[in-house]
Amino acid sequence: MTRHDAKPREIEFWFDFGSNYSYLAAQRIEALATGAGLAVAWRAFLLGPIFREFGWDTSPFVLQKEKGAYMWRDMERQCAKYGLPWRRPSVFPRLALLPARVVSAHPRAPWLGAFCRAVTRQNFALDQDINAVEQVRAALVEAGVEAEAVLAAAASDATKAMLRALTAEARARGIFGAPTFFARGEMFWGNDRLEDAIACATALPSPAS
Amino acid sequence: MTRHDAKPREIEFWFDFGSNYSYLAAQRIEALATGAGLAVAWRAFLLGPIFREFGWDTSPFVLQKEKGAYMWRDMERQCAKYGLPWRRPSVFPRLALLPARVVSAHPRAPWLGAFCRAVTRQNFALDQDINAVEQVRAALVEAGVEAEAVLAAAASDATKAMLRALTAEARARGIFGAPTFFARGEMFWGNDRLEDAIACATALPSPAS
Repeated sequence: MTRHDAKPREIEFWFDFGSNYSYLAAQRIEALATGAGLAVAWRAFLLGPIFREFGWDTSPFVLQKEKGAYMWRDMERQCAKYGLPWRRPSVFPRLALLPARVVSAHPRAPWLGAFCRAVTRQNFALDQDINAVEQVRAALVEAGVEAEAVLAAAASDATKAMLRALTAEARARGIFGAPTFFARGEMFWGNDRLEDAIACATALPSPAS
Repeated sequence: MTRHDAKPREIEFWFDFGSNYSYLAAQRIEALATGAGLAVAWRAFLLGPIFREFGWDTSPFVLQKEKGAYMWRDMERQCAKYGLPWRRPSVFPRLALLPARVVSAHPRAPWLGAFCRAVTRQNFALDQDINAVEQVRAALVEAGVEAEAVLAAAASDATKAMLRALTAEARARGIFGAPTFFARGEMFWGNDRLEDAIACATALPSPAS
């Protein structure tokens, strides 16, 4: 058995809090991963800089109106299928710098799942401004976290640099949209591939015990 | 019960023979539809004119290299998942005017499923030129059809006009990619939505008997 096999099993979840299909994955991933014996590595990055490198100044769902019109209907149906609440946001895509910085500053915190579910629900079920301090604070409180210390850490220069580095890493690894998952070095794009990514991650030999 | 409810249940399958995700759907749809008591309405159209209206001169998988690189790996995995043969075509996207005209000329033929499976397999498992008469003839023979009469009908001006009208209809109905399904007036995009489209179509009340 190689040293690689002895690493804890995990699935990397790369997402943008402003991405609608990331909402579906953020709500679903922890329960699926836990059921499969996997840890989730939460990687909140910014799609905006990646889209700008493609020459786009906003989401392709805005730039391509046919695909955008379809996506809104698809989201209604997907949320109904998964039993998730849904309200079309009045602003799309929403900037989500502050909640992404919170994740960058606490990449292994046990409350990340609850926090990310709260923020994406604010955006796609409650139509709230997820980049506002008061909303991020409310999501932290909902996740059972002492909010002020986390907000202070999120505002540090070190955290800002971490988020920039994470977004550069996303670009370097070939990420072109969100959500994107990595399992055993394989990249999977889109909420529709979450189950495939989990299956890939769990196909690893058991860690040495 | 309205007159609409008395129509035979069906799922419309809009695809381009050159589209890789259409290959997956073309191989899968008839068995799934038949199992659900649905007829398949085969609608082979051309994506090229639609992409050109978006300002693209070829497939987005060619224009956006990150997404293209991902797609080829995704196809390998998807074909493995579905148990379908796979070989990356040496030409992509392949022009597929002639097989699309065959479908336009015979929109209700019982051999369409076998023919469409044969042509998409030529493209994505055998790396053959699906726009060549000899390949289309071979696909017709494989589908048990008297090939020469069908090829003659495919070359008629009426057939060419039908395919142009079909592609215009695709545009008018908001189709922006392939495969696309319609069920009960709902549009579903992508092979990943085939099961959802079938479920939607079968949610119809039973036809009056």
